Amino acid sequence: MFLPKRFIEVSARLSSLPGIGPKAADRLVFYLLDQPEDDIRALAESLMAAKREITFCRRCGNFAQGDLCEVCQDSSRDAKVLCVVEEIRDLSAIEKTGAYRGLYHVLHGRIDPIARVGPGELQLGRLVERIHLDDVREVIVATNPNFNGDITAMYIAKLLAASEVRVTRIATGIPKGSDLEFADIFTLTQALEKRTDVQT
Amino acid sequence: MFLPKRFIEVSARLSSLPGIGPKAADRLVFYLLDQPEDDIRALAESLMAAKREITFCRRCGNFAQGDLCEVCQDSSRDAKVLCVVEEIRDLSAIEKTGAYRGLYHVLHGRIDPIARVGPGELQLGRLVERIHLDDVREVIVATNPNFNGDITAMYIAKLLAASEVRVTRIATGIPKGSDLEFADIFTLTQALEKRTDVQT
Repeated sequence: MFLPKRFIEVSARLSSLPGIGPKAADRLVFYLLDQPEDDIRALAESLMAAKREITFCRRCGNFAQGDLCEVCQDSSRDAKVLCVVEEIRDLSAIEKTGAYRGLYHVLHGRIDPIARVGPGELQLGRLVERIHLDDVREVIVATNPNFNGDITAMYIAKLLAASEVRVTRIATGIPKGSDLEFADIFTLTQALEKRTDVQT
Repeated sequence: MFLPKRFIEVSARLSSLPGIGPKAADRLVFYLLDQPEDDIRALAESLMAAKREITFCRRCGNFAQGDLCEVCQDSSRDAKVLCVVEEIRDLSAIEKTGAYRGLYHVLHGRIDPIARVGPGELQLGRLVERIHLDDVREVIVATNPNFNGDITAMYIAKLLAASEVRVTRIATGIPKGSDLEFADIFTLTQALEKRTDVQT
């Protein structure tokens, strides 16, 4: 041990964060000790403020500062279309495309038989409520295209079958810009099955 | 903008740290918001405490909590050998080898003619003082083997020429485990010039 206890402690805390290994954590502490005390304080206070102030949007489950999130507050968005995602990071990925102008519904989970997570633990009652209250036209189910995501999607489709709403699922296939030879067999099989007519 | 202002602010602060890009910063905030408030507070307080409590060792310039650093406090180390390094991160690299049992002297810089950093801005007066006070036997100059590090080493050797102390320089050559074909010409030239007899 050649560094102060406090150095080792803060470095250990940082290296417990995702994507930060012990070397990167040491490098961060070296860097931070070189910064003015005010900057460290600002970082520390902003971390605590984030935890204190950020809650979930009452309507869609996205992060929000206050009652409604930025997406739900945006009156220019199409409130008749809902995109259902498992987690906020999925919402984040979709927002970054800039291709979607509807609202969201975050399940905060997925049906997972192995982990014994059933539909009752997802925000599904709230989804049905929103569809009726807001007269929603389409629900795009954007759960992940894997086993748990697929059964969650299936469950939602059945749940909404009785209502007027159109339920769609995001497309699966070969990723744009990738090579056929590197696609796994399930993806390639799906891409063949879900082939579309070429528009001329 | 689909995330709360506070989220964006804390993510921006994190992505200003070295080795953390905007994507990694967002991922960190997602992770942190999922942790208990006490954990965030502990991280924040430990960052501030580190900045407040960690200073430089009065003797060698390493990080210290208090007057002397962990290395200088360790009476089992050989106080008659000093290793001179540019920065604490170099001390850290040498300590990790476990191969050195002497003390250190951190210059907190190097002579840099282009950046107009002269010997007066380094901790050199203190070095001379230590050599005489502690009756030092050897000074190993472990500044980086590049232009600035080399002229700093040369300056130190001249500065100490009048005293009894032996001044040595860390070896340069082909890194262990690497291939000759990938070595740059300067390294390879040095490795040839500084060849040693094979011990049999």
